[in-house]
Amino acid sequence: MVYLTRRERFNSAHRLFNPKLTDEENNELYGKCANPNWHGHNYDLFVTVKGEVDPETGVVINLKDLSQIIKTKVIDKLDHRNLNVEVDFLQNTIVSTENIIVAIWKELQVELDKTPARLSKIKLVETENNFAEYYGD
Amino acid sequence: MVYLTRRERFNSAHRLFNPKLTDEENNELYGKCANPNWHGHNYDLFVTVKGEVDPETGVVINLKDLSQIIKTKVIDKLDHRNLNVEVDFLQNTIVSTENIIVAIWKELQVELDKTPARLSKIKLVETENNFAEYYGD
Amino acid sequence: MVYLTRRERFNSAHRLFNPKLTDEENNELYGKCANPNWHGHNYDLFVTVKGEVDPETGVVINLKDLSQIIKTKVIDKLDHRNLNVEVDFLQNTIVSTENIIVAIWKELQVELDKTPARLSKIKLVETENNFAEYYGD
Amino acid sequence: MVYLTRRERFNSAHRLFNPKLTDEENNELYGKCANPNWHGHNYDLFVTVKGEVDPETGVVINLKDLSQIIKTKVIDKLDHRNLNVEVDFLQNTIVSTENIIVAIWKELQVELDKTPARLSKIKLVETENNFAEYYGD
Amino acid sequence: MVYLTRRERFNSAHRLFNPKLTDEENNELYGKCANPNWHGHNYDLFVTVKGEVDPETGVVINLKDLSQIIKTKVIDKLDHRNLNVEVDFLQNTIVSTENIIVAIWKELQVELDKTPARLSKIKLVETENNFAEYYGD
Amino acid sequence: MVYLTRRERFNSAHRLFNPKLTDEENNELYGKCANPNWHGHNYDLFVTVKGEVDPETGVVINLKDLSQIIKTKVIDKLDHRNLNVEVDFLQNTIVSTENIIVAIWKELQVELDKTPARLSKIKLVETENNFAEYYGD
Repeated sequence: MVYLTRRERFNSAHRLFNPKLTDEENNELYGKCANPNWHGHNYDLFVTVKGEVDPETGVVINLKDLSQIIKTKVIDKLDHRNLNVEVDFLQNTIVSTENIIVAIWKELQVELDKTPARLSKIKLVETENNFAEYYGD
Repeated sequence: MVYLTRRERFNSAHRLFNPKLTDEENNELYGKCANPNWHGHNYDLFVTVKGEVDPETGVVINLKDLSQIIKTKVIDKLDHRNLNVEVDFLQNTIVSTENIIVAIWKELQVELDKTPARLSKIKLVETENNFAEYYGD
Repeated sequence: MVYLTRRERFNSAHRLFNPKLTDEENNELYGKCANPNWHGHNYDLFVTVKGEVDPETGVVINLKDLSQIIKTKVIDKLDHRNLNVEVDFLQNTIVSTENIIVAIWKELQVELDKTPARLSKIKLVETENNFAEYYGD
Repeated sequence: MVYLTRRERFNSAHRLFNPKLTDEENNELYGKCANPNWHGHNYDLFVTVKGEVDPETGVVINLKDLSQIIKTKVIDKLDHRNLNVEVDFLQNTIVSTENIIVAIWKELQVELDKTPARLSKIKLVETENNFAEYYGD
Repeated sequence: MVYLTRRERFNSAHRLFNPKLTDEENNELYGKCANPNWHGHNYDLFVTVKGEVDPETGVVINLKDLSQIIKTKVIDKLDHRNLNVEVDFLQNTIVSTENIIVAIWKELQVELDKTPARLSKIKLVETENNFAEYYGD
Repeated sequence: MVYLTRRERFNSAHRLFNPKLTDEENNELYGKCANPNWHGHNYDLFVTVKGEVDPETGVVINLKDLSQIIKTKVIDKLDHRNLNVEVDFLQNTIVSTENIIVAIWKELQVELDKTPARLSKIKLVETENNFAEYYGD
């Protein structure tokens, strides 16, 4: 069993905001991250899959296929977008790093289940000081 | 003459957009960077000053003073902000990396002229693939 | 269950030295790392916590709270300090990367047990070539 | 139980190629990675061992010893070499990142079993976007 | 006058070798870099152009255009290639970092002279420890 | 004229301290950097030389020779040392980043003047946020 990781990147606007809370409560909870005029990040997304090495090809999954799945299902929907208002699979979600990776997992797992690789881990780096990881459970 | 550089960071939303052009023209010119719902970046700002080394202190300028000037005059106004709508010194500016560094230069030069150091260079890294530099002329 | 990681940094002096051994034995064991005049490092500390995502806030733990705990309990005691002589929780410890992370774990676990997050992993990067990790057991 | 990681680097030429397939099949499978004139990479190899911290030394294994084992058994055979034609332990192997780390594991495990540390993980970074990991099973 | 830099990457095989010298002389001169079976690198190419900021667009040159020129004239010819045998503009060249950047300058200057930007600097990073820069004279 | 840069690293202890000032004055001036028990850094030293490309070798200077000069004249004296008390060429110097690079310049220029390359620039990175550069005048 070998683990293979592909990095893809996206640059997005977002804000942390719970619509059930007042503006004051949001500000108290999230500070400047709640700014109603948005802020943004360069996100680094690391998708790790696991699988047996195919003796015919020497790889777990063709990296081009893995990259293409991530781009089509995730990057094309997030890159140069507003995460709060433009992403179908993030509707009604507080777009924290934690919630984004759980949502990305669901998008990718469906597609990766059609391949010989199994989704193992999603890591999302928001800044050089902060990142989140999810293993699907 | 020694050159000293301090890095500070800010995370902001922006879009590339010329209000004199139509939406179609903006899209043709800037592509996805013109998205009216904004996108964003982790910006790395490198401010380089030059000066003689003070024999009493061994430094060109106290790094805490340099850092404080950059934070007060630039970072506090840009971090977790929308560069198009919330920044006094970027009003009526197309917020390209090029224009941002020229505007930052003007903000910092006034303050740094009160110190023994001279502003030498502004470098702004928008992504790992793109950055701009300005030397004041 | 989502994992959230915060990086904090500290710059410290230290030496590898076992007081039970002679100087010659320390030199043989640790080489230049045993220099009695000290050397030092820029340390990168990565603290990973795990927990359920709170549906009201969208996060496992508020990153400001996590950062504040790490700074108060660890960074303020280590940064710009001599790890061998100035740190209460490293007394009578050979300040190897391995021992430092076990000691940091004990300092942080007490505080993090008062939060909804559980301490999952401590990673300490001493140089670009060397790092240690600890999972609490 | 603490985990200790040492990074070593090597710069090598290789190509992805299955000799049982035709040139056309190799091209379809691997694209430009199958170029018969070779291409190459700066590889970053991260070797992680685990073990108890020795109370006499404060370390799991002396980093110099760990580094020396990796250099002698792996780096000296791979660095500035052609992975397809010059490496004894990669003969008859499709030199994908996946297969390289499984082969490196076998080379290192034998040597590390003579030390107090146990081999825990091999990570090989081929580019800033691609890496593979192996845990021995 | 603002300076704008675009990074592009290529992964190539090469060797240092002067055909006028004997194998022994090449080995003495270049060491393991002369290995006749090749080795390789992940190269990071930084292309810096300078120019006035166009008040209509806010940029010196559209980054997509700059990226496209670099890809078409340089990256497509170098990436996943053997620098010694497959590159038209490196024929009869010792493919040192120094000679590669001078050759890349000539390829890019012709194209960039058709744009509003002027080529200012080529930087080529061969490893994390070695890079070369060229300013055209 | 091509510029070639070699990076070497050293890990050292130091403090900022002017012996002509009182402890209180040093604390006011340098803050925690004046800690009498020392602190330390991982320093990244970038040495840039310039020269014509030798048509026989394709290089400005053999990188092994450049690396060897830096190691012998600088790194061996600074690495795992206390910059305030153990370095001959830093005696009676406030070991700020600024003063260290001026002192390194003098050490290296003498040796490099015996080679075909000319010393062009010294860059010393103290942390990811601070670095100094010196061009010899």
